[in-house]
Amino acid sequence: MKVLIVYAHPEPRSLNSALRDVAVHELEAQGHEVQVSDLYAMKWKSEISRTDFPLLDEQTRLHVSNASKVGFNANALTKDVRAEQEKLLWADTLILQFPLWWFTMPAILKGWVDRVYSCGFAHGIGDHSDKRWGDRYGEGRFEGKRAMLVVTAGGWEEHYSRRGINGPIDDLLFPINHGILFYPGYTVLPSFVAYKTDRLDEAGFSTLETQLRERMQTIETISPIPYRRQNFGDYLIPTMQLRPDLESPDAVGFSIHQG
Amino acid sequence: MKVLIVYAHPEPRSLNSALRDVAVHELEAQGHEVQVSDLYAMKWKSEISRTDFPLLDEQTRLHVSNASKVGFNANALTKDVRAEQEKLLWADTLILQFPLWWFTMPAILKGWVDRVYSCGFAHGIGDHSDKRWGDRYGEGRFEGKRAMLVVTAGGWEEHYSRRGINGPIDDLLFPINHGILFYPGYTVLPSFVAYKTDRLDEAGFSTLETQLRERMQTIETISPIPYRRQNFGDYLIPTMQLRPDLESPDAVGFSIHQG
Repeated sequence: MKVLIVYAHPEPRSLNSALRDVAVHELEAQGHEVQVSDLYAMKWKSEISRTDFPLLDEQTRLHVSNASKVGFNANALTKDVRAEQEKLLWADTLILQFPLWWFTMPAILKGWVDRVYSCGFAHGIGDHSDKRWGDRYGEGRFEGKRAMLVVTAGGWEEHYSRRGINGPIDDLLFPINHGILFYPGYTVLPSFVAYKTDRLDEAGFSTLETQLRERMQTIETISPIPYRRQNFGDYLIPTMQLRPDLESPDAVGFSIHQG
Repeated sequence: MKVLIVYAHPEPRSLNSALRDVAVHELEAQGHEVQVSDLYAMKWKSEISRTDFPLLDEQTRLHVSNASKVGFNANALTKDVRAEQEKLLWADTLILQFPLWWFTMPAILKGWVDRVYSCGFAHGIGDHSDKRWGDRYGEGRFEGKRAMLVVTAGGWEEHYSRRGINGPIDDLLFPINHGILFYPGYTVLPSFVAYKTDRLDEAGFSTLETQLRERMQTIETISPIPYRRQNFGDYLIPTMQLRPDLESPDAVGFSIHQG
């Protein structure tokens, strides 16, 4: 297997860095090939801006989606973006690893998504008809590939549980798992989340290391999150409503999007 | 009223830019003072890094939360961060305005949150006991101030509705409204969301402009999202579970955190 880890933490001596090394070593021990995009080490540019689109005329208004489509189709995006797109095509498994900052990913990783997920590459592909609404949510560029999150959280696991005040961790991560990974076609694996990471002692790290190794050993076999695919009958087209006979009419939240 | 708009779009001729101007003019017409942090124009630095913490010794491992606490307490954060913190203290109303990219804010705005929300300023304050768990979720630095989101989305409103495939917009925005605004004490107003913004004609813009003006006129009076406050009896301390007698035991999703 070929695994790409996109990694976002500014400190090489951090827990996140140690966990990344654990994952890399375990994956390599299993015979997989691994590449790491260490965004801070690469001095990744976070902000989409005009300079991302060399073909864009100075006088032309920047419409991000249009400009990225033109740039992608002409193979004229910037070198850093093209290199990441090549890695995504190379990998059959993607891991996004990051500390949970304000209940989502750090800016630098969001900037990787914003810039690398060009129109024509990760979205804006496929036909629209009365039977299909583009290649997305289970279809798309990365169909057949697997992806998962490795996340560290300073807070307590209880605070992220079903009735915990922060909201359930799976719901907090839904915009990423469903909106960023499932959207362009990835099969999404359950997230690996470490809690109370600010207070981790040596025994705590050792336990965490074991758990992460085990998750890396099952990366090819673990059952994915069973998100409903868009174009296979569960959703009405073009309103994209879940079919009335699926789930209770009173159901709320993200969980109705799992079959 | 004093209103701070933190605004994130790279193109001065964009719909977002036009909507920002609509909001500013309407607020000023109502007699409010307005400041705008135009993050792209300011060339805002998105990534938290060592250079954010001038007091941090070269040999010392960067622990973001600790370093930001030390820097904040010593008034030794970088000038750009201190300026934004001053604006937040000045304003009694905060508006975050952005295009919805991959179901959340653009990287540059996430970087504003990551860097400006220092420990000791926006989190990590207040006592922890068997009756309180810090000043957060309804208490904190910004208690008594109001905040809201102004968001543009390319997609259809139906796709973001209760049974729409993207997930309900209020749930997608929960990590921001609850986790970034309510957490440090803001009273959170319903979001203003514009849909199908890629296909907006002149009449569509005119309608949108009217709607946004109306929302700006009610910014002092509109009822907030009734999020449950942390330290007032709805949650068990320290597990931060919603009290068993509140909401159905089978309830799922974020909506249980509204009273």
